[in-house]
Amino acid sequence: MSSHSSSNLHQQNNDASSNLSKKSAERIKALRRKKQNISTLQKDVLKGNKTALSRAITLIESQQQKHTANANKLIEGCLPYANKSIRIGITGVPGVGKSTFIEAFGNFLIQQGKKVAVLAVDPTSSVSHGSILGDKTRMEELVKQENAFIRPTASGNSLGGVAQKTRETIILCEAAGYDVILIETVGVGQSETVVHSMTDFFLLLKLAGAGDELQGIKRGIMEMADAIVINKADGENKKAAMRAKIEFRRALHFYPLKENQWQPKVKTCSALHQKGIDKIWEMILTYEKLTKNNTYFYKNRQEQNKFWMLQSIDEQLKLNFYSKPNIKIALQEQLKAIEENKTTPFKAAKHLLDLARE
Amino acid sequence: MSSHSSSNLHQQNNDASSNLSKKSAERIKALRRKKQNISTLQKDVLKGNKTALSRAITLIESQQQKHTANANKLIEGCLPYANKSIRIGITGVPGVGKSTFIEAFGNFLIQQGKKVAVLAVDPTSSVSHGSILGDKTRMEELVKQENAFIRPTASGNSLGGVAQKTRETIILCEAAGYDVILIETVGVGQSETVVHSMTDFFLLLKLAGAGDELQGIKRGIMEMADAIVINKADGENKKAAMRAKIEFRRALHFYPLKENQWQPKVKTCSALHQKGIDKIWEMILTYEKLTKNNTYFYKNRQEQNKFWMLQSIDEQLKLNFYSKPNIKIALQEQLKAIEENKTTPFKAAKHLLDLARE
Repeated sequence: MSSHSSSNLHQQNNDASSNLSKKSAERIKALRRKKQNISTLQKDVLKGNKTALSRAITLIESQQQKHTANANKLIEGCLPYANKSIRIGITGVPGVGKSTFIEAFGNFLIQQGKKVAVLAVDPTSSVSHGSILGDKTRMEELVKQENAFIRPTASGNSLGGVAQKTRETIILCEAAGYDVILIETVGVGQSETVVHSMTDFFLLLKLAGAGDELQGIKRGIMEMADAIVINKADGENKKAAMRAKIEFRRALHFYPLKENQWQPKVKTCSALHQKGIDKIWEMILTYEKLTKNNTYFYKNRQEQNKFWMLQSIDEQLKLNFYSKPNIKIALQEQLKAIEENKTTPFKAAKHLLDLARE
Repeated sequence: MSSHSSSNLHQQNNDASSNLSKKSAERIKALRRKKQNISTLQKDVLKGNKTALSRAITLIESQQQKHTANANKLIEGCLPYANKSIRIGITGVPGVGKSTFIEAFGNFLIQQGKKVAVLAVDPTSSVSHGSILGDKTRMEELVKQENAFIRPTASGNSLGGVAQKTRETIILCEAAGYDVILIETVGVGQSETVVHSMTDFFLLLKLAGAGDELQGIKRGIMEMADAIVINKADGENKKAAMRAKIEFRRALHFYPLKENQWQPKVKTCSALHQKGIDKIWEMILTYEKLTKNNTYFYKNRQEQNKFWMLQSIDEQLKLNFYSKPNIKIALQEQLKAIEENKTTPFKAAKHLLDLARE
């Protein structure tokens, strides 16, 4: 009986090893296929193929760990071709006309021979499942342009995760030849800070209205803005817009000159009637020239890259931890124990951290 | 020579082992001393000794890793005596009169026989070195009260870190017998969300002013508020305050009923003249009764505890990573390499993560 069972085992081993070699052959083939796919995808992105760009972004946005290696490979492959655009952050409360502004500004830039990518950082999307840019029809004209690429909000479990994906998306868009990147955000939570941390120029859209113009501006936003643009400066609003312009200019003068030697500007425009859009682009070009001459432009990108590195690390640490199979199980147990008052958050955290160390 | 060197080695070994036993004896003594200190400190905190409470908070706020074990021991020891207070979050823009309100509210509560602790979450403190509660003289009366404990902003490297320390401080204050915990924050970044995530009742302070009352309220804050209190409802302001009250009430009615079955209230008060303060406390007691009856109060704390656990883990993962000696060195090298464009944030992060895994 023992010999029988041992021969059986032997037999099984043989089967297993033949299975194994079959499997590895398949795996190697699949890997080659994937490698080829990624390098093909990269080539297509570099050619400026929009479908490839969309697929590439979907890949880097994937939450599945099996996609991580390919996503990393793709980003690394695209990085040498990136960094050549100007990255413009655009913020403003809902109703200020961000979409109309981006539509007008984007179309103007395309007329100037630019290729324009429009991205969004929306911290509320994890709750409300996205709103900014979700409704693409809001940019009817721009979306039809051959030289425009519009991508709704990146997905992620945290604002840090969303930021990470957006940075990588910028790289992909730049590699695809887009030379102006517009990044829209609605002023919620720390989203402006996030967008500020990945752009060269930060534009705050405002409306002229009744009451105190400066009220309702979150502390810190004014300091971040390189320009305040008062939109809807048309018709009956025109007068109020001019008054607001004077008021904002006065307010901006209270802030010390920025490290980049740039005195933040206040402009008015009517995105609806496409008035004043050219002056905004002129201003941004002046800014670019100034800050490239005094090297701030490059230093700022270096600082942003450092921040990017730190944020990448934080995101990866979390991903490594929570994707451990034993942690996945124990996490659910500990959450349940907290719910049943059988442990404290303190002990539960310690338990999970100890478990991960084993 | 070989024998000489070997005897030398032996001698050294002897010295070393005698040194070692001396050292361990000292270490054990020091450990005993520390243990005693921590258990004494804990006892004093439980007795309600304010000096001990201050020292305990300073210990848990310490950024030094050598203090971590003691801090953890202290928190664990205090946890069974905690959780018995009502935790009230108070937010509002600068100028709304938060300090005056807390002074009036705190003094009122003390007259009711309560022990009141006042804490603050200030996300700007890492930049501007703290502002809220920093100037203790702003609460002249309250600070003199035997039954009041006022503690300025917790320190931390990140908002998550600050939140963590504030949660632990709440535990310590509760263990020291404080039965009302007021947590103040200025509406910057995600600080309200953080304070909301650690309180039972969330109060938004507002001013009645000219113009649109609803303007200037960050999206999401209205949804979080269990009550809007219009401060400075006195003198010439009274009429405007009553109008604002009606307007806010109308606005609040647009929101669906909260999970806790509580219909958020709008109140007016004059903190300066101590008018309406009692009604606010009455409202909070009604809220407490309702939500304890329908168990929301407890469920909410459980949810907060789960969130606390997750945040503890994230903070600890970062701490573990960045405190590794080889990472400390390599981090500086990689930051420099990014500055000199010799690497990308992507590669640098990968390099550091690989290094930590070794």
